[in-house]
Amino acid sequence: MKKDGFFITFEGADGSGKTTQIKMLEEYLVTQKKDFIITRDPGGTKLGSKLREILLTYDGKIAPFCELFLYLADRAQHVDEVIMPALNNGKMVLCDRYIDSTLAYQGYARGLNIDEIINLNNLVTHSLIPDLTLLFDIETGIAMKRIGDKKDRLESEAAHFHEKVRFGYLDLAKKDPQRIKVIDASMSIDDVYNQVIEIIKQFV
Amino acid sequence: MKKDGFFITFEGADGSGKTTQIKMLEEYLVTQKKDFIITRDPGGTKLGSKLREILLTYDGKIAPFCELFLYLADRAQHVDEVIMPALNNGKMVLCDRYIDSTLAYQGYARGLNIDEIINLNNLVTHSLIPDLTLLFDIETGIAMKRIGDKKDRLESEAAHFHEKVRFGYLDLAKKDPQRIKVIDASMSIDDVYNQVIEIIKQFV
Repeated sequence: MKKDGFFITFEGADGSGKTTQIKMLEEYLVTQKKDFIITRDPGGTKLGSKLREILLTYDGKIAPFCELFLYLADRAQHVDEVIMPALNNGKMVLCDRYIDSTLAYQGYARGLNIDEIINLNNLVTHSLIPDLTLLFDIETGIAMKRIGDKKDRLESEAAHFHEKVRFGYLDLAKKDPQRIKVIDASMSIDDVYNQVIEIIKQFV
Repeated sequence: MKKDGFFITFEGADGSGKTTQIKMLEEYLVTQKKDFIITRDPGGTKLGSKLREILLTYDGKIAPFCELFLYLADRAQHVDEVIMPALNNGKMVLCDRYIDSTLAYQGYARGLNIDEIINLNNLVTHSLIPDLTLLFDIETGIAMKRIGDKKDRLESEAAHFHEKVRFGYLDLAKKDPQRIKVIDASMSIDDVYNQVIEIIKQFV
């Protein structure tokens, strides 16, 4: 799709520190006088916030395809209502999670067909691929320690689920090194931030 | 999919009287001592009722693929949690709307790709097709008069939208006359009921 802005997504396990890094990057972009928005997937729209609530807190069993299609429904709304309009206005878009989360969590970890998810992602996003993806990689044990006891529905999955998510992310990065840059998220907040800024400066 | 029960779906415009007919059929099946459940799409599960609420009452603009994927998410949950278990237990399942609604409303009327919807329906339902579908056909003008002023989000679409829905349903019936039986829903409640019972008796 044609667009004028620049689209950056942030991926990685909960506990990888990506949300903290987005906030730090926000301050940097303000000093650089960049025109940008920060959003998140799921929950980047009014409708999406209702879906995020269901996805993260529903206490019953959610059918695998129901979970997948709720993430995709949220994304369809998010792309049409928020992301594409911002990009078309020449803005930089920073998005906390996007297509790679669905591949890592519902594909690699839940076991749904990867090629099918790629097709569905393309369908609902009109094939909008990020210009740059920062993958915050961290050992599962460390990430889970950081999260502590206050876990949402996905965070409450067993350790081997999160191991598969991590493997999935790294596999995606190996297949598309041009777009997906792996960041060592086990380091101190400042050291992780230095890695982020070094990459960002090459692109924006 | 292998199953022991019998799966009947009820399709047609709002105002076609299908919900009234399901209730009348319920009384008949009770007298016949049939083991059955009555359910609806969307909203046949606890999770689905949250999605139904969004689909029928959300007051903002819903992106076309968001709407489609919400119906499909609801259906995935409904098939896994309610419909398949009931069929596997040898029950008859009566469902108010199902795959054909998505084809008629989001496909024929909204203009999304029909073959794509068929594939997505198959994906989320594990290709569970009804054994019998009763299509309550009625002129759009009469249906809209019956609904009156108290309309939900879909009912509030313009008349030409509902014309396309009707055309879509009839086209589906023409393509699969073995499964989809067209009922003239413009007649009196009792006359429509007689048509329903005549068909039902051939199958159950």
